Amino acid sequence: MNDPRSIKATQAALMVSADDTEATFYEALQQGDLDRVMSVWAEEDEIACVHPGGPRAVGVVAIRASLEAVLSQGSLHVTLEQVRRLETATCAVHHVLEKIQAMTPEGLQQAYVMATNVYLRTAQGWRMVLHHASPGQPHDMPDVVELGATLH
Amino acid sequence: MNDPRSIKATQAALMVSADDTEATFYEALQQGDLDRVMSVWAEEDEIACVHPGGPRAVGVVAIRASLEAVLSQGSLHVTLEQVRRLETATCAVHHVLEKIQAMTPEGLQQAYVMATNVYLRTAQGWRMVLHHASPGQPHDMPDVVELGATLH
Repeated sequence: MNDPRSIKATQAALMVSADDTEATFYEALQQGDLDRVMSVWAEEDEIACVHPGGPRAVGVVAIRASLEAVLSQGSLHVTLEQVRRLETATCAVHHVLEKIQAMTPEGLQQAYVMATNVYLRTAQGWRMVLHHASPGQPHDMPDVVELGATLH
Repeated sequence: MNDPRSIKATQAALMVSADDTEATFYEALQQGDLDRVMSVWAEEDEIACVHPGGPRAVGVVAIRASLEAVLSQGSLHVTLEQVRRLETATCAVHHVLEKIQAMTPEGLQQAYVMATNVYLRTAQGWRMVLHHASPGQPHDMPDVVELGATLH
């Protein structure tokens, strides 16, 4: 248990595709595992994270602090209801709809959040460079894909 | 004036760098020139645009409709107060703080909007694939770059 080799193998495995990196990010958020959440980020100065309604955190120190604050409020159950992908050989832009459920004193609360996640292929595999999340709604927020969809 | 050759030359020139493409995007918004706004986008199915508080528009038809709705409300004066860049040979992620001023019946209104713009290098030059803007505040929204910055 906690064999450093198996941890290293897991971390290497998660970087094989942007989908793997994304799955690890949300799993780790759900587990409240801050070190694992941080392991998916690229080693770049200008990585950035925007939480709904919050300022933009830039760089690993500020991002870690912002995510620690989120996790300190208790466990979050995040389900990805929709993922759209724009991918090239070196860059992946994912558009996700996050369904977030949290247990509060008032009971189970639920909200939808629209987020964009960007990943770059690095020497260490696919790493997150951006998580930008927009304030949620209590109801579903379907993407507008065709003009017709807004009229019917 | 309106020489098709000079228009074509301008459009080719604007794609030389992500910064050029970004400058053209905001200039065109300010000019209310929808065709020019649309000229900066990549020819990909999964390009996406999120306006503050709005749903996500995906694809050229939905994005054009959403931007047309924005421009129909009158001219917008957008100043970029801050641009951070994470760039590779083929992908550029820009974090911008937009200062938006609009003349309304109640006088000049002002708000700050946090936006992420992503550009890819394509055969047609650098093209926008994402514009994700978060709801604004009436006041400045500085980025949190270091943990210390939030404590002092």
